[in-house]
Amino acid sequence: MNASALLLQPQDYSLLTDLYQLTMAACYVGEGLEQRSASFELFARRLPEGFGYLVAMGLEQALDYLEQFCFTSEQIAALQATNIFANAPSRFWELLAESRFSGDVWAVPEGTIVFADEPLLRVEAPLWQAQMVETYLLNALNYQTLIATRAARLRDVVGDEAALLEFGTRRAFSPQASLWAARAAIAGGLNATSNVLAALQLGQTPSGTMAHSLVMALSALEGSEEQAFTAFHRYFPGAALLIDTYDTIAAAQKLADRVKAGEIQVNAIRLDSGDLVTLSQQVRQLLPHTLIFASGDLDEYEILRLQSAGAEIDGYGLGTKLVTGAPVNGVYKLVEIDGIPVMKASSGKVTYPGRKQVFRRYQNGVLEADRLALSTEPPQPHETPLLQPVFKQGKRLY
Amino acid sequence: MNASALLLQPQDYSLLTDLYQLTMAACYVGEGLEQRSASFELFARRLPEGFGYLVAMGLEQALDYLEQFCFTSEQIAALQATNIFANAPSRFWELLAESRFSGDVWAVPEGTIVFADEPLLRVEAPLWQAQMVETYLLNALNYQTLIATRAARLRDVVGDEAALLEFGTRRAFSPQASLWAARAAIAGGLNATSNVLAALQLGQTPSGTMAHSLVMALSALEGSEEQAFTAFHRYFPGAALLIDTYDTIAAAQKLADRVKAGEIQVNAIRLDSGDLVTLSQQVRQLLPHTLIFASGDLDEYEILRLQSAGAEIDGYGLGTKLVTGAPVNGVYKLVEIDGIPVMKASSGKVTYPGRKQVFRRYQNGVLEADRLALSTEPPQPHETPLLQPVFKQGKRLY
Repeated sequence: MNASALLLQPQDYSLLTDLYQLTMAACYVGEGLEQRSASFELFARRLPEGFGYLVAMGLEQALDYLEQFCFTSEQIAALQATNIFANAPSRFWELLAESRFSGDVWAVPEGTIVFADEPLLRVEAPLWQAQMVETYLLNALNYQTLIATRAARLRDVVGDEAALLEFGTRRAFSPQASLWAARAAIAGGLNATSNVLAALQLGQTPSGTMAHSLVMALSALEGSEEQAFTAFHRYFPGAALLIDTYDTIAAAQKLADRVKAGEIQVNAIRLDSGDLVTLSQQVRQLLPHTLIFASGDLDEYEILRLQSAGAEIDGYGLGTKLVTGAPVNGVYKLVEIDGIPVMKASSGKVTYPGRKQVFRRYQNGVLEADRLALSTEPPQPHETPLLQPVFKQGKRLY
Repeated sequence: MNASALLLQPQDYSLLTDLYQLTMAACYVGEGLEQRSASFELFARRLPEGFGYLVAMGLEQALDYLEQFCFTSEQIAALQATNIFANAPSRFWELLAESRFSGDVWAVPEGTIVFADEPLLRVEAPLWQAQMVETYLLNALNYQTLIATRAARLRDVVGDEAALLEFGTRRAFSPQASLWAARAAIAGGLNATSNVLAALQLGQTPSGTMAHSLVMALSALEGSEEQAFTAFHRYFPGAALLIDTYDTIAAAQKLADRVKAGEIQVNAIRLDSGDLVTLSQQVRQLLPHTLIFASGDLDEYEILRLQSAGAEIDGYGLGTKLVTGAPVNGVYKLVEIDGIPVMKASSGKVTYPGRKQVFRRYQNGVLEADRLALSTEPPQPHETPLLQPVFKQGKRLY
């Protein structure tokens, strides 16, 4: 396997799908039904544990995918070589060879708050196309929506002033996951990411402090933790200092002495272990003009606990519990075929038939109520329809 | 942002890092310490909840990264434009421009069982290089190790005969995550993946059944669920039929009648909802020669529950709970610098100093004991050292 294997190029997009999308498409072709007009809606039946809302995110990548959708002759040959399609109609291969996404898409704008059962997106396209794009659309929207929602929940908890930094790259589920997480986290309310590539791709400035390894290496080679801090400030004046490598309070005490002596300026420190409540309070007393950052398996629940216990923390690094964990379980369901509303009746997974719209009503700028209705129903007074056209006959509208 | 933004090309590898790796490297250069020999070890302090072991995975992608490691002049210019490095020594940029990974790497082979605190990998390299590669190495090994371990646990539970299929792409945390998950799942013990791109990249045949949408669309357009099944079998004879769209037992009963009448052959069916214990038993009675596949938020615990409750299931589709959830929290820690063993003493995060080896002893083919020792210690009788050289002076050994 060469070095680029298991990376993803834009031309790979169309094969990033479950096999059954292709076999079902072949069946539709064989039955002569592939061009029938189909509508699928993407929504979450239930929100993740404890979540009251979702922040829709990932539409940009979803639309990138639809724009690029096509099959190369090499890809078609690779599919044929599997022998899975030995009995598929030859017209299926012609369809793939000439394929472009030619449908309409309606979606809520990125950043929109949505609730359970409310469509984030609806695809109206020839049946085989609408079917085939399911896997990638879910992949694109499920993860970024999760991260943007968590980011919004974190911002809710800490208020406007506190810094929230995305530090999750090492724990993200693949390099690309770290890029998508950084994008969605910033869109959802975080201030910055430590991921250099993500920050540069997003037009942001990356953020970061220092690691224990620098303190350990320079302590060993130059003699002390103090010298490590001084050395780092030579090249990054004012950079946050990580003070918990050996003894947090001893480190803070020494820094306080040096601040008093005018030897160093300590704009910010980071705590990454121990009892963050007590430590942050003690550091605040020793270094009253220093910003205190905390990290280490933090999430909105732990931050709430720290706040209510009186921790003195000005900023948070979010990693593992921001970028991993339980997902948004979005699904993509057929709601109408050839003008016929359809539904499934599976136990616990019943769907609502027909093409739908979410009508949202605000009262004094506050969301008062949503009404999930058929898309053909007119809005009532003071209602705004959330789903907007983003693709029209295969052409991206924004 | 163009369509390829937030995708990852091999030349992006080096910027897929936390900012502090670059600022620390600049500091090492300024202090004249960047070429000092440093050893970092990658290990997990604690295993995920309920796990008794890890299956090391992801080394191939980690080594791909080290082989590709370099900075282009465009990347260097982009870093300079951030102004973060305004006080960094100019020698830092020269170092980046000429950078190649020139160190040694020791690692346990992919598929090796490891326990808490046992290094999966050790990097011995000039300090700045060993520091810089931390983020990507953790990203590569943490996720694939998680998935391979879950796959092994699933295989343990179901035994050698049952089919285990990876269906997680729609819930994976980015497209690339779905590729890495498929690779690690198959390496860890699953039979196949539904992800077409992953299967083709891995030289495997993709696997799959059918979705509710096909049953709904063909029921609406051709008249009945029965016709949907018949249509699908025209192009994919013997393919597994999804029978829970409307009424699982009614569907199984009709299929049983048609089997008796010689009208259809039902090799396999899939259940995706409802009480899988009762439903699978009833389907087994109706269709005694049909393989029964189950899916729907399954994991090793739920499968154990199904088995002990007497479910009649021959194969499982694993999605959400295989590819998302709590991570392996691998860390990468400096253990020696310039011949000096080092450790951190942070509360709850103390590390063991010095370069280490894992000596494993087998008794009659069964793992009897591991001994975590300094790498300079000789093996005792019947012990095998787990960490093997995989990179020597910047050259990949396999």
